[in-house]
Amino acid sequence: MQLQCPMPKVDFEMITLGHGSGGLLTNKLLASGVFDLLKNDLLDERHDGAFINLQGKTAFSTDSFVISPIFFPNSNIGELAVNGTVNDLAMCGAIPRYLSLSFILEEGLSMQEFWEVLVSIKFACEKAGVCVVTGDTKVVEKGKGDKIFINTSGIGTVHPQANISLKNVNAEDSLVISGNVATHGIAIMSVREGLQFDTDIQSDTQALNSAVLTLIEKFGNDVHLLKDPTRGGVAAVLNEIARDTHLGIDLFQKNIPIDEQVEGACEILGLDPLYVANEGIFLSIVNSEIAEDYVQLLRTLPEGKNAQIIGKIVDAHPKQVILQSSIGGKRVVNMPVGEQLPRIC
Amino acid sequence: MQLQCPMPKVDFEMITLGHGSGGLLTNKLLASGVFDLLKNDLLDERHDGAFINLQGKTAFSTDSFVISPIFFPNSNIGELAVNGTVNDLAMCGAIPRYLSLSFILEEGLSMQEFWEVLVSIKFACEKAGVCVVTGDTKVVEKGKGDKIFINTSGIGTVHPQANISLKNVNAEDSLVISGNVATHGIAIMSVREGLQFDTDIQSDTQALNSAVLTLIEKFGNDVHLLKDPTRGGVAAVLNEIARDTHLGIDLFQKNIPIDEQVEGACEILGLDPLYVANEGIFLSIVNSEIAEDYVQLLRTLPEGKNAQIIGKIVDAHPKQVILQSSIGGKRVVNMPVGEQLPRIC
Repeated sequence: MQLQCPMPKVDFEMITLGHGSGGLLTNKLLASGVFDLLKNDLLDERHDGAFINLQGKTAFSTDSFVISPIFFPNSNIGELAVNGTVNDLAMCGAIPRYLSLSFILEEGLSMQEFWEVLVSIKFACEKAGVCVVTGDTKVVEKGKGDKIFINTSGIGTVHPQANISLKNVNAEDSLVISGNVATHGIAIMSVREGLQFDTDIQSDTQALNSAVLTLIEKFGNDVHLLKDPTRGGVAAVLNEIARDTHLGIDLFQKNIPIDEQVEGACEILGLDPLYVANEGIFLSIVNSEIAEDYVQLLRTLPEGKNAQIIGKIVDAHPKQVILQSSIGGKRVVNMPVGEQLPRIC
Repeated sequence: MQLQCPMPKVDFEMITLGHGSGGLLTNKLLASGVFDLLKNDLLDERHDGAFINLQGKTAFSTDSFVISPIFFPNSNIGELAVNGTVNDLAMCGAIPRYLSLSFILEEGLSMQEFWEVLVSIKFACEKAGVCVVTGDTKVVEKGKGDKIFINTSGIGTVHPQANISLKNVNAEDSLVISGNVATHGIAIMSVREGLQFDTDIQSDTQALNSAVLTLIEKFGNDVHLLKDPTRGGVAAVLNEIARDTHLGIDLFQKNIPIDEQVEGACEILGLDPLYVANEGIFLSIVNSEIAEDYVQLLRTLPEGKNAQIIGKIVDAHPKQVILQSSIGGKRVVNMPVGEQLPRIC
């Protein structure tokens, strides 16, 4: 449910090349509520960069968002761009604090659409507890972009009890997922392909930093690795982990949570849910001794009510991810090669 | 003069949508020399974000680069993207340290061109003393982008003696420019319009952080404000300063340095050099008592050999920039409205 902010009165309805000029039109676009909307002391200084104070171990992350369409069930590219970078920082065991926000707008984009995206950015920032402290706006000619591309880069303070690293992953560790797989990818696919389901399948994009913080405060360095399985889905992320740790991963199909409708849609579309992009879930590799408690705590949180232990790290079959299927067979889950669904984030 | 790195052997000549999938093709693209090329301990961790250690006052800046064409006399979008963010940090009085690097590639881009851009990024980083610690690569369909868009965000440590702020600008302060105006904009224009000059007009893009550091170490808080007059040129930046400080600016035309050929090109094209974009120069507003010494020191540096005092801050005509022309007249230099030259950076 998106709260609304009234659009400022402006004397233009569409973005033109001039809005990227650095001149009067750029100033008009920014003054027209953008600075007011995203207001904070650091942004208000309006220098070439923002001055921030940081102490100690810091995480720094960047992501460009090119999702098409820019509006999709339950969300849009603006909220996605905030949550995406917030989550990348959370996956580092960091408390996200500051974001940069950079737009590449296509000439002809309506001010109305731009405003809706901006409002979503505002609320997503508030929800995640971050603020936009510096930004940039460029405009390209019609046909040289696609409505809106957004880059967010983020800075977060690494939690003193966090020790997230590939190096900490050991055989016997448990693999935990925080929620249903494939939801975001299928939500986007349904809009693009004009598919109708009984109820709308909605993107699950959400900020995960609050849940991660709760888990790290409780379990500290028993949390070995955190990853959000976005592009390439669970399959890509697990294959990367197996490759980089030289360990194997066993995956238990029956434990992998998935919404019934999403599962049905995957069947219709011939998609393997393990390869579909996610936005609102994360994978944890944790000490197996605390895995049950970890899942129990995660399930008490709104972001983790469908959490499950879905696999374990093994010495056997190094660099390979093996799925134990619900009907008893086994198969290798390979790294996806190309693009199942382009421009999903 | 661009140093070369041999292109890695890859089994593809063009970027395809699959290279943005997060799967095997993305890994192939990155493994194919990208990680080797930009190698450093922080990037090598390959997590969702980089872990860095920071203490104290820090500057954070972002910029997206959409320049067309991506190759232009003396440089390309890769070097520009590094220097642009390095310079934004330098303008904060900061020592640039870490960059993020995010690509939006258009399907069909040749691997050769992408490689040339990457190599330029590598050398620009080495020259400026920064390293790329985190990144992202997205690919959009042909016709939904334009070869390469790059976002760089940067983090720098503010120099302990720096105190750069609009609030420090006072009437009687001197306005110093570090070098010739309008060079970058005219270099780009000449390629786009196929103009021929006696000698090539080359972009002046360069990292300014070393020069700024030398100046701040010598003159400390007598340096009140630093700005690089990129999009919108000197006119836009000075108008912003006048607007935000509620002070006036007097500009002495006869002191404004400009290359003879660039000046000629501006005349032919009907462009006012004050509105043409720059990349390799910066404006300083300094205590008038040290202005002469400041310019003398600047002239000893390779980045500042054409430095001049070109104006002063005044109480008269608040929020207005007034040019005293070489032939004795006066005129208001207004904020540019729209785009004189789109996609100049």
